Amino acid sequence: MTADTVIDAVERAHRAQQAWWVSEPQARAAVLESIATALDAQAEELATIADRETHLGMPRLVGEVARTTFQLRMFATALRAGSILAPQTDPAVPGPPPQGHPTLQRVYLPIGVVAVFGASNFPFAFGVLGGDSASALAAGCAVVVKEHPAHPELSQRLVQIARDAIAGAGAPMDLLTSVRGVREGAELVAADQIRAVGFTGSLAGGRALYDIAANRATPIPFYGELGSLNPVVVTRAAATARGPEIAKGYVESMTLGAGQFCTKPAVLLVPADSTIIDEALALLPGLPAMTLLTADIATRFDAGIAALAATPGVLVHRATNSAGDQQSPAIVTADLAAFLDPASALRHECFGPSSVALTYQDPAQALQVLNLDEGVLVGCVHGEDDDPDAHLFLRAIEQRAGRVVWNGWPTGVAVTPEQMHGGPYPAATASTATSVGLHAAERFARPVVRQDWPAHHSNPAAIVERAE
Amino acid sequence: MTADTVIDAVERAHRAQQAWWVSEPQARAAVLESIATALDAQAEELATIADRETHLGMPRLVGEVARTTFQLRMFATALRAGSILAPQTDPAVPGPPPQGHPTLQRVYLPIGVVAVFGASNFPFAFGVLGGDSASALAAGCAVVVKEHPAHPELSQRLVQIARDAIAGAGAPMDLLTSVRGVREGAELVAADQIRAVGFTGSLAGGRALYDIAANRATPIPFYGELGSLNPVVVTRAAATARGPEIAKGYVESMTLGAGQFCTKPAVLLVPADSTIIDEALALLPGLPAMTLLTADIATRFDAGIAALAATPGVLVHRATNSAGDQQSPAIVTADLAAFLDPASALRHECFGPSSVALTYQDPAQALQVLNLDEGVLVGCVHGEDDDPDAHLFLRAIEQRAGRVVWNGWPTGVAVTPEQMHGGPYPAATASTATSVGLHAAERFARPVVRQDWPAHHSNPAAIVERAE
Repeated sequence: MTADTVIDAVERAHRAQQAWWVSEPQARAAVLESIATALDAQAEELATIADRETHLGMPRLVGEVARTTFQLRMFATALRAGSILAPQTDPAVPGPPPQGHPTLQRVYLPIGVVAVFGASNFPFAFGVLGGDSASALAAGCAVVVKEHPAHPELSQRLVQIARDAIAGAGAPMDLLTSVRGVREGAELVAADQIRAVGFTGSLAGGRALYDIAANRATPIPFYGELGSLNPVVVTRAAATARGPEIAKGYVESMTLGAGQFCTKPAVLLVPADSTIIDEALALLPGLPAMTLLTADIATRFDAGIAALAATPGVLVHRATNSAGDQQSPAIVTADLAAFLDPASALRHECFGPSSVALTYQDPAQALQVLNLDEGVLVGCVHGEDDDPDAHLFLRAIEQRAGRVVWNGWPTGVAVTPEQMHGGPYPAATASTATSVGLHAAERFARPVVRQDWPAHHSNPAAIVERAE
Repeated sequence: MTADTVIDAVERAHRAQQAWWVSEPQARAAVLESIATALDAQAEELATIADRETHLGMPRLVGEVARTTFQLRMFATALRAGSILAPQTDPAVPGPPPQGHPTLQRVYLPIGVVAVFGASNFPFAFGVLGGDSASALAAGCAVVVKEHPAHPELSQRLVQIARDAIAGAGAPMDLLTSVRGVREGAELVAADQIRAVGFTGSLAGGRALYDIAANRATPIPFYGELGSLNPVVVTRAAATARGPEIAKGYVESMTLGAGQFCTKPAVLLVPADSTIIDEALALLPGLPAMTLLTADIATRFDAGIAALAATPGVLVHRATNSAGDQQSPAIVTADLAAFLDPASALRHECFGPSSVALTYQDPAQALQVLNLDEGVLVGCVHGEDDDPDAHLFLRAIEQRAGRVVWNGWPTGVAVTPEQMHGGPYPAATASTATSVGLHAAERFARPVVRQDWPAHHSNPAAIVERAE
């Protein structure tokens, strides 16, 4: 099976969209549930294909399928319950304005055909049928998926499963089509009938596509997650009380999924007199080299670590030798001043199992790092009860993060209704939007107010029935 | 009083924002109510200044002050009631993911300092203290207002009244600062500390500012309302039943506020065998010439009408002679084919008391106009009960409009919680957002999820109290 041309894929999705503008929430829920059922039925087989293409391991990948179907069903349940995108009415108030007004009913229509660019590191949860596609389908949109080059076989399988499941639910199969290729991705964002984009990937690639979306004759929203140096700060009180436990949690979190999480703890800040960094470094020799997603990602990771090692004020700690796509984890220690230099290599996201560990003399020094301009997806504070430093740190981080964790680690984004996965630029291109949780569907739903409509016009099917 | 430099105005607003990040909803409500009280106390005086600068007449302007203070109080009431921007919690669920998860509390922080560009045609409701400023203040943002050149004295008075009222409510006076000048407006959108823009104005000016916002190193959301050719369609059944009444309503709506409404009925579609257009034309001689907002607007209106008169397939009907800023209303009749040419002058918004009236042979012809690509703020259908054409027309319009009116006119945007004033581009630059109604505040509120936070950290004041 070859991928469609961009024109074909968009045109077919557009025709499906035309037939689906006024789909009932129950019909959309049935589509989402049908896809979830089909994925669950083939979870082991899909994870096997994914493991061959990503090396992320079967337990993680089987779990990721479960997370993905849980997410699809969360939207379906919310649609059935009317807890998302439900019409809201302001009943008429008699009298002159501003108090008096006609009856207004706010409804949510699909924004139109949505282009979805999945990520390399979550082939299911942020892939062809991940949060962007699930939320777009929940909003009644057709979706054109840009297949990720790192998992071509899995992408094709997922597209086919989805199309069959959509048709099985009685909806137009072309509610999901796909394209592949870098140039094709750019053409997709520029295509007339595309009305929004969901993207998870790199800063360079994401910004290039954002620029296309923003500079169209008719600009469209680009919901991109581009990169983040997530900070974790430990207060003096927490370092004293729980140093070894924090060191262990840090190393586990930074190496989860071979460090290929957008929520990786990228910068650790601990008090200068704590032993947490030494304890973390002592754990490195016990860790194996890790197989990264692709040879290209491994090469870039190795080069990034080499660039850091050559930076003044920076020390790279790495226990074993790396070769090819087998990369050993690295902890990078540095002077605070070196990190605060905006031009420093330390300020670039290094995708893979590494993290920068810094020390601070007093809370004001830590705040210099926490108060940087760049947005982040998530930040964490490890503190104790009645710990004024912790309060300061939480307040600082929440001004630039989408999620702020108390006494925990940034990796692991729970799929819940109110979740927020995003943040100020460059963490995301739209800081008021989330790509996880029920609010994700709001990105692809366009409000329309129906003023003084009689009930039989508000129901899409009614007039047809009356005419028959 | 001279306007601040852009750097000063932004820097002062930014400092006020720093002090206001964690303001309580009650404190924001008090600010909004304080401004509303001050405006109401000076309504006659403010309307007098506005009438001198806009010629919109005292009754309309006094009414517009009331609408503006009603809007400010609507946000205040919603903040006090917790019906907007209230925290939402997903309580912890025990067990492994995807079902199990920690406690997540979603809160809404201000997006940062917001730049507000008001419109010429609504000096109060879409001006210095209109919906954009009210919703930004409701979200806890500081605001830098770009004063409109068409009403310099009024702008200055409104800025001063607002700053005094803010200080009177115990909040930082610099939550509202202002700048003036075209170059200054562009600098404002480019300024580092500006994090969002609200704009109401022209397509050319709005798109230029949108481009600056979208192409910054750190892009920011630009919520602009740029222009709209709002359609009104009359079914055969309605034309037969209520022709003269519809003709009268049309002429009244297109000349309201001297036609200087973004919601003006710009395109009327009636059945070819109806007499509605003739009846509307017969009403023109009874209308006076109208004083437009500025000499510049009058000149552009006159030139726009002249360009239409010179267009093949177009007839301009205008009862009296126009001179200077006194312009007589015009109804423009044209062939449907002339209108459907995308390059036609008929497809440009003509700001002032004019409207294009077209006839259709059958519903499919009308749909050619209703199905055009460009987004619109609002569209209207005049139909009867059990009128299948009406249903077709409603469905077509709602695919490209933010508001769809049944048996009414587009002018008059009610200020209600669920109102939607916006639409697909170019009606608005962000089709999922509204500039009127309570949802307007969502444009300027950034969600943050607090994961596993103990209660005393979630309350901004608590840790200070505990420390004392």
